[in-house]
Amino acid sequence: MPRWEPGSTERMQRAALELFAEQGFEKTTVNEIAARAGVTRRTFFRHFSDKREVLFSASVTDFPETALVEGIARADGSLMPLQMIMSASAAYDWDTLGPRDLHRQRHAVIAANPELMERQLIKYEASRVAFAEALLRRGFDADAANLAADVGGALVRSAYERWLDAGDDTTMAQIIEDIVATLRTALAADVGGRFLVF
Amino acid sequence: MPRWEPGSTERMQRAALELFAEQGFEKTTVNEIAARAGVTRRTFFRHFSDKREVLFSASVTDFPETALVEGIARADGSLMPLQMIMSASAAYDWDTLGPRDLHRQRHAVIAANPELMERQLIKYEASRVAFAEALLRRGFDADAANLAADVGGALVRSAYERWLDAGDDTTMAQIIEDIVATLRTALAADVGGRFLVF
Repeated sequence: MPRWEPGSTERMQRAALELFAEQGFEKTTVNEIAARAGVTRRTFFRHFSDKREVLFSASVTDFPETALVEGIARADGSLMPLQMIMSASAAYDWDTLGPRDLHRQRHAVIAANPELMERQLIKYEASRVAFAEALLRRGFDADAANLAADVGGALVRSAYERWLDAGDDTTMAQIIEDIVATLRTALAADVGGRFLVF
Repeated sequence: MPRWEPGSTERMQRAALELFAEQGFEKTTVNEIAARAGVTRRTFFRHFSDKREVLFSASVTDFPETALVEGIARADGSLMPLQMIMSASAAYDWDTLGPRDLHRQRHAVIAANPELMERQLIKYEASRVAFAEALLRRGFDADAANLAADVGGALVRSAYERWLDAGDDTTMAQIIEDIVATLRTALAADVGGRFLVF
């Protein structure tokens, strides 16, 4: 499970994110990151295989795929598959991922760089597949599991991006509740009947 | 708008998909594709810049992003943003994309190759961004547009993958209606209250 490690890991991540924001990801070197964090190159490479890993290694990852998959495995058996994903996401304590401002900066760096964004998309896709597999293990059929994983994955991604921008006192559970209320209205039968007439 | 072109384009695509399925995407050469399609290399390169483009060029693309963005632009102004995406998707005639069996084969080749899957994910992401921008142009705020684009994009992807596997007489409108019914139940207030209690 991704866990936030304070101390030198955080110092290096903060230094890297500052430099990426100031001068771009491409132009930033490991030497510069180590210097700003006050560590040696050797220390840097004990934690990260390269500067990309400052953004993507398990210790700083943004997306708690393993925890959510475990949440699906433990979810109340009376829930529908999408409910299992949302229940797991709302029950997870997202603040254990570390300071929200770091995740916000990390997200901005990734969004500004197509190559990093590709890697992030691959991570989201891996989570989607992991959710679908977890739901199949709960006995749902492939259509139900895939639909829930597609929509649930998107929903959690959307919630996560709102959580990044929200104040530190806004919890993921509150955000998911808001999103569910919005989608419930959009999918309600009385409007559904109307928008499916062309 | 992506449009299916019958004739030599289809012959080349069918030849390429057969070869990709038989011997893998990596091992297949343009010479083999041209030979099986009964065209010259020159003809191949008049249609496609390389073998990857047989899977991704606008003339054979799977995902009618432009048509759906236009549908959002024209959607009834009383609709919510997610409803605009779904209305546009259900109103679009997906069979104008060409024979469904070709899309099914194309999808199988892409799913079997991580590098091709990455490109497909980038396409889905581009559609998501295009949906969000189209919704912003309809006057929705960023939170509403992004949520609808995230969830709507996933929903259309899920619907598209069901459409691929469905019989030729099953329309996208029917598939979307089924999906909406499933999600409506999953998000209904009476179960929502339950699954948001942890």
